[in-house]
Amino acid sequence: MKTEKDGRPVWTKKDLLGLEYLSREEIALILYTAESFKEVTTRQIKKVPALRGKTVINLFYEPSTRTRTSFELAAKRLSADVINVAIEASSVRKGETLIDTGRNIEALKIDIIVVRHNTSGAPNILSRAVKSSVVNAGDGWHEHPTQALLDMFTLKSKLGRIEGLNVSIIGDIAHSRVARSNIWGLTKMGANVTVCAPKMLIPDKIEDMGVKVTTDIDEALEKADAINVLRMQFERDGALAFPSKLEYFKQYGVTAERLKKCKKDIVVMHPGPINRGVEMSSEVADGANSVILEQVTNGIAVRMAALYLVSNARGKEI
Amino acid sequence: MKTEKDGRPVWTKKDLLGLEYLSREEIALILYTAESFKEVTTRQIKKVPALRGKTVINLFYEPSTRTRTSFELAAKRLSADVINVAIEASSVRKGETLIDTGRNIEALKIDIIVVRHNTSGAPNILSRAVKSSVVNAGDGWHEHPTQALLDMFTLKSKLGRIEGLNVSIIGDIAHSRVARSNIWGLTKMGANVTVCAPKMLIPDKIEDMGVKVTTDIDEALEKADAINVLRMQFERDGALAFPSKLEYFKQYGVTAERLKKCKKDIVVMHPGPINRGVEMSSEVADGANSVILEQVTNGIAVRMAALYLVSNARGKEI
Amino acid sequence: MKTEKDGRPVWTKKDLLGLEYLSREEIALILYTAESFKEVTTRQIKKVPALRGKTVINLFYEPSTRTRTSFELAAKRLSADVINVAIEASSVRKGETLIDTGRNIEALKIDIIVVRHNTSGAPNILSRAVKSSVVNAGDGWHEHPTQALLDMFTLKSKLGRIEGLNVSIIGDIAHSRVARSNIWGLTKMGANVTVCAPKMLIPDKIEDMGVKVTTDIDEALEKADAINVLRMQFERDGALAFPSKLEYFKQYGVTAERLKKCKKDIVVMHPGPINRGVEMSSEVADGANSVILEQVTNGIAVRMAALYLVSNARGKEI
Repeated sequence: MKTEKDGRPVWTKKDLLGLEYLSREEIALILYTAESFKEVTTRQIKKVPALRGKTVINLFYEPSTRTRTSFELAAKRLSADVINVAIEASSVRKGETLIDTGRNIEALKIDIIVVRHNTSGAPNILSRAVKSSVVNAGDGWHEHPTQALLDMFTLKSKLGRIEGLNVSIIGDIAHSRVARSNIWGLTKMGANVTVCAPKMLIPDKIEDMGVKVTTDIDEALEKADAINVLRMQFERDGALAFPSKLEYFKQYGVTAERLKKCKKDIVVMHPGPINRGVEMSSEVADGANSVILEQVTNGIAVRMAALYLVSNARGKEI
Repeated sequence: MKTEKDGRPVWTKKDLLGLEYLSREEIALILYTAESFKEVTTRQIKKVPALRGKTVINLFYEPSTRTRTSFELAAKRLSADVINVAIEASSVRKGETLIDTGRNIEALKIDIIVVRHNTSGAPNILSRAVKSSVVNAGDGWHEHPTQALLDMFTLKSKLGRIEGLNVSIIGDIAHSRVARSNIWGLTKMGANVTVCAPKMLIPDKIEDMGVKVTTDIDEALEKADAINVLRMQFERDGALAFPSKLEYFKQYGVTAERLKKCKKDIVVMHPGPINRGVEMSSEVADGANSVILEQVTNGIAVRMAALYLVSNARGKEI
Repeated sequence: MKTEKDGRPVWTKKDLLGLEYLSREEIALILYTAESFKEVTTRQIKKVPALRGKTVINLFYEPSTRTRTSFELAAKRLSADVINVAIEASSVRKGETLIDTGRNIEALKIDIIVVRHNTSGAPNILSRAVKSSVVNAGDGWHEHPTQALLDMFTLKSKLGRIEGLNVSIIGDIAHSRVARSNIWGLTKMGANVTVCAPKMLIPDKIEDMGVKVTTDIDEALEKADAINVLRMQFERDGALAFPSKLEYFKQYGVTAERLKKCKKDIVVMHPGPINRGVEMSSEVADGANSVILEQVTNGIAVRMAALYLVSNARGKEI
């Protein structure tokens, strides 16, 4: 990684496509940069001129109020101008290709494209087609890097470090970009990651990513410093991902009962929105160990950092 | 009501949920504050920095271009950042609860939630769940406080006072949040309110709100200083609210003919959009007594006042 | 045309409804003004305070991500506040009339209405109803003046002039507002315009607009300094505008083969989005003669000029 003369690391990538592509130092730089932006969101006037005169487009091929809103706020608090474009899946078929769309956006002199797409790898394709920066806001089952970064930021805020922590990711690992980005990020930062799910929801060869695998929730909870509980989607392409919500909750739901056997200050995370009574009980979601709303707050700071860094990447020209 | 040392009243409520919950002094303070903002909208540069660095979310569970646009303009003219979120009724069922949505918005450090919801009381629920300010932009058949405030502001601009005026509200009283908010506001400000509608569109015990009731339009018009004509919706849950548009116009439509028998300078209001030839004739809608477009203009000033006051409520912390 | 004391022309129209209504001098003034705004979009901080405190509404009765985004960016780079309103065709029928909508927008003290409408002449109707400026962003098959202006701006940038150029417009002339605006603009600026299409797609009496007509693509290409290739829509009101895409490409598609017989530096334009392999081959779309992405870039500058000029029209009051 490039550094300043005084040794400070320098961000050089024009894009943020996934944590798979970042070094430990780059992840640390994003988290470090987010610290200073977090302070901004506590001010009376929650705004800095860092990206004044820059333009950010939220290009969403999947509907997402939460992530879009978080990016929009992050960009506006950096004083950027924001354009929202929601493209329905149905209109893509008749429309122009992703590359043509990207080149048009580049021609509009838009600085940063925040893209969510149902196809894994779409942000990578876009990135190669344009000089504008591309920030992945979730692609297929591939990555959701800013979600994992805000999870790690929250973890570090609560426990002081990431290295050496035991983190269990619980839920539908097979279909989760949040899980994949967390695994890449956490293992790079030196955490011990366990994934826990019913067998049908654990992808083949997931161990190759450097994680432990278990189907036993009690084992996943036992030594955990933190858990990241994923949202369950029961209907997927018309088929059932798991027989019943009640059965899932019984077998895998995080309850106060189960938390009692955990470390006392275990950190409970969830990317939201929560299915109360499915992935976890309301008691846990709203309990003392839950940092779910802090994650939402930290999302703004992390996204401000991501937008700021890619926009100021050394050596980049737009 | 709290006052400054010099006797000026101080706004202390974090929310604007309905005129039912406001004192006469609080209503007067909003109208007074709106006066100064009205001047801003006549300038070449229609913008003041009052809410710079603050964030307003328009959280609309019912589609509404007019009210959303008015609030968006009001917020932007105060230099706030605005996020628009439209939530389709269909997606609510699968989605998170209103309280979870509210807590997420609060976690995003959004200062003011402008909410429209098809369920009466939804803004009240939201208000109790979050520290952010909540402004009701219309909830079910309950209240639409900023509409009633702009109606009163317009009335005061045209006739110099509200106290002692005879105001008739004509139309579907039973299903109108505009009617309810106007009744609360006008009676508190000392106006004499008459409601007029076909019997099936007058709710039970409406007299308990301090209004006179009549089914006879000529009686409603006779002594009126002002009328507020409501929009008729003929289809409601598949059933007809009234047999026919033509018949409604014949019995209750405000026509030039009927106006002739009224006070010469009677003020004609309508919250819009008008069904021309149903609630009133085009001649009346566009005539010398109509203040319908002034209401639209005043809506911005009143909403600027509402956003400004709740955001600066004394003793509030976000 | 009015001029300053020093002879510089002065813009006096409150609207930009179509190139049919502009003089040669007025078109030249827009293109000249766009030159200086083009420079702004190359800066690090792509923003000027020219329209600070002004409000622009994008009132779109037809969906259009590209044109809306371009206008939104243009307005924001002039520091105006922008409100987006998309109105579905289905909701127009129950809703208020265009004139009532316009009067409401005017009452909101919105300075400029950018309107796209499926009905030819809708912007003209709106313009007469309101004091706000109206900019036509495409109406029915009538005009799309900013598209033609950006085409001419691009032409002038590449070839140094418009007067005397041979420009061929190729494609569905009959249903194209882009074609009509280009014909008005180019002929006023002194270009020689040829239109080329299958017979069924050439409107009656198009010669009266001062253009040559041919059904032979090779004739249209032969002496052309520039071509403007229109997007083909094959389904229109359920009927086919042309038997087959393949057949159209064979007869009218612009290919590298066909370009070889043209002037070496022929300028190839397309309003986008391109149907690759229908109107032109990918080789041509992405080739050395294509200025398609420059058109997109220039669209911002031209729209900034249009918004700026109508907003500052001499003698206009809002």
